[in-house]
Amino acid sequence: MRILSNRSRYAFNSIHENDMLANSMKKAGKKVIIINRGDPPVYFKTPSYIINAFMRALKEGKTGYSSAIGVEELREAVSKRQKRLYNVDSTSDDVIITQGVSEALMFLNASLINDGDRAVVFRPYYAQYVPELEINGGIPILERYSEEDNWSVDTDSLEKMLKRDPKITKRIKYVLITNPNNPTGTVLERKTLKEVVEIANDYDLLLISDEVYDEIIYNKAKFTSISELAKGVPHIILNGASKDYDSTGFRIGFVIIPENDRTSSEIKSKIKDFATLRLSANTPAQYAVAESMNNIREHNKAIKYMVKEIEERANLASRLINGSGYMHAVTPQGAFYIFPRLNMDRLRINDDKEFVTKFLKEECVQITRGSGFGEKGHIRIVLLPYPEILEDAIKRIERFCRRHSR
Amino acid sequence: MRILSNRSRYAFNSIHENDMLANSMKKAGKKVIIINRGDPPVYFKTPSYIINAFMRALKEGKTGYSSAIGVEELREAVSKRQKRLYNVDSTSDDVIITQGVSEALMFLNASLINDGDRAVVFRPYYAQYVPELEINGGIPILERYSEEDNWSVDTDSLEKMLKRDPKITKRIKYVLITNPNNPTGTVLERKTLKEVVEIANDYDLLLISDEVYDEIIYNKAKFTSISELAKGVPHIILNGASKDYDSTGFRIGFVIIPENDRTSSEIKSKIKDFATLRLSANTPAQYAVAESMNNIREHNKAIKYMVKEIEERANLASRLINGSGYMHAVTPQGAFYIFPRLNMDRLRINDDKEFVTKFLKEECVQITRGSGFGEKGHIRIVLLPYPEILEDAIKRIERFCRRHSR
Repeated sequence: MRILSNRSRYAFNSIHENDMLANSMKKAGKKVIIINRGDPPVYFKTPSYIINAFMRALKEGKTGYSSAIGVEELREAVSKRQKRLYNVDSTSDDVIITQGVSEALMFLNASLINDGDRAVVFRPYYAQYVPELEINGGIPILERYSEEDNWSVDTDSLEKMLKRDPKITKRIKYVLITNPNNPTGTVLERKTLKEVVEIANDYDLLLISDEVYDEIIYNKAKFTSISELAKGVPHIILNGASKDYDSTGFRIGFVIIPENDRTSSEIKSKIKDFATLRLSANTPAQYAVAESMNNIREHNKAIKYMVKEIEERANLASRLINGSGYMHAVTPQGAFYIFPRLNMDRLRINDDKEFVTKFLKEECVQITRGSGFGEKGHIRIVLLPYPEILEDAIKRIERFCRRHSR
Repeated sequence: MRILSNRSRYAFNSIHENDMLANSMKKAGKKVIIINRGDPPVYFKTPSYIINAFMRALKEGKTGYSSAIGVEELREAVSKRQKRLYNVDSTSDDVIITQGVSEALMFLNASLINDGDRAVVFRPYYAQYVPELEINGGIPILERYSEEDNWSVDTDSLEKMLKRDPKITKRIKYVLITNPNNPTGTVLERKTLKEVVEIANDYDLLLISDEVYDEIIYNKAKFTSISELAKGVPHIILNGASKDYDSTGFRIGFVIIPENDRTSSEIKSKIKDFATLRLSANTPAQYAVAESMNNIREHNKAIKYMVKEIEERANLASRLINGSGYMHAVTPQGAFYIFPRLNMDRLRINDDKEFVTKFLKEECVQITRGSGFGEKGHIRIVLLPYPEILEDAIKRIERFCRRHSR
């Protein structure tokens, strides 16, 4: 008997596939530039007011289990934050604290997906979406963000697909969008989101919006939360403290499920069951994040600085990439990734997978292949490093391309 | 279409089923004694050397993602701890850090279980084991710890079962024991464990041992880790910092998979894949636990005190329970639970479920029903509260029984 389960073969995160190689290179004494992981604290020190709040919680003895769904203080802070940023009403009862958005995805798929159920995911997708779905027996319907339209949702294609085969459409458990987008850095326009909500409403589909980068917006973009538009349409917001609050290592995410209808309350109650099954998220971290959210002044200072820096790095990267002749990238407006299309015709390299591995070996920079996000012929570069590191890394890409050009 | 998946119906933790009721009673101004959750920090302040280590990690900026499988420092500390306590050799590569033992159970079941696969679990079992198995499509084979034999493994019954139907036996993916046991407080004897290992070897079965209470041993018991006995037999140790290091709210567990054979390395590699899919456990907590484990002097002081206190409370509870006439309990030798059998014949109450709910309503004490652990007619009482609270709670059970006696 094979010891491993069939579905465990989907447990794979392409973002990390070259970690072993990078590690062995480091052990061999090489200096490796790691720009495959979106980890703000590496380049932006977690603000001291957050660290202080965390230490206070520890000193106050908040070290036991929390309520499985999260401490009331944090759930209230999340609810207030939604009101403050998006003027959306919710109660702390609509909020469930998870161990990062990753755990929220796990709970959602386990709660919703039967073997053969479908979920709509848009290419390029964040690398966890499809594995989590497939592990649970689901089949992705890959719709597209269109590169020629600034990586916006191709709503025409979406509608056409939904009309095509009602039997398949009936099996769709959710439609998942990411806004701002990882890996493209696109901030979806309000108009587009309205269309998506309308389509979800027309076809009676549950909408899930991953908004974990919702405060990292620049280049004059305007962010709209799906919760502003989807009143009356069943929807779920995924978010967390990792990016906006510069604390990836705390593992604090949250799910917001507004009370809409029976569907919403069934899902909410089931996610809570999954939460009780793993007892608690990190307790002092929850108190730290609650205080961080409530201290609006300090937060605004910190996020403003971080976003300004990211904007500069994004524009620097975009300029260099688009000037290189070997790649082309839409300039990001949110999150901290850029997703260039490689001009594969000019290269003596078979695909993006070969590209990133060879590039790591030869130029000591770890980036991520686009095909890991469902989009071949692209690479994802994290925009967090200091400008000189980022510039160096992109110049190495150019040099690498030149060396392997036809 | 039903929105929830079929298997999500197994997501349920009986330990928490009366939380809502208890909360509403509290909100109504009642003082409720909560002894359903094994949460040491509520009654034993997390030692300050651990808190200090945590704060140091925060101050040093260890706030980003860790390696998905855990920070090297902690994996090494775990490996050293196994050597120190059990004289078992392992490397940090055999250790994977998880978000509590809960997450380890989730990863293991997802890695191993196909629909219809079996796993052997002994009644009474820790309340998460069966749901996690069933969510993943597995079917439990419920063997027994025998109450008349101090809740030891009934190895005869186990062997008989394994012989009965080779087709079923072939589908068994693992045999899971808990030592020290939750909910019974039993510490399995070395002789018994040897028999279990032999059986696993004879039938080519993977052995999983949940040893999360391995340093909470009293009443002259002697603990043996399965890793001391199972050299050459594929086995997995589950453990964590929650109980021994009095830090449930940190959510730091670990899986130890000794390099034995192909089975072991396949499982290890797959668990690592699942870890990368959720990116990281809480980073500063990992450093805190690493330091806590390495500071043997401080740890020994803390654990010695806690175990002495628990021993006194366990013996107090056992005396009161066994003197009551309405219950009988094996005196625990490890962990911090006691699991009395109710003398149901003497009560005008239908079952343990009715018992715990009615008892909560009438006497304002939340305990857990035995049937949630697969063992009807029992209740689980947490032994952590201060002696006067524990005594009060048990006297209320007695009063309650008297009031509802036939």
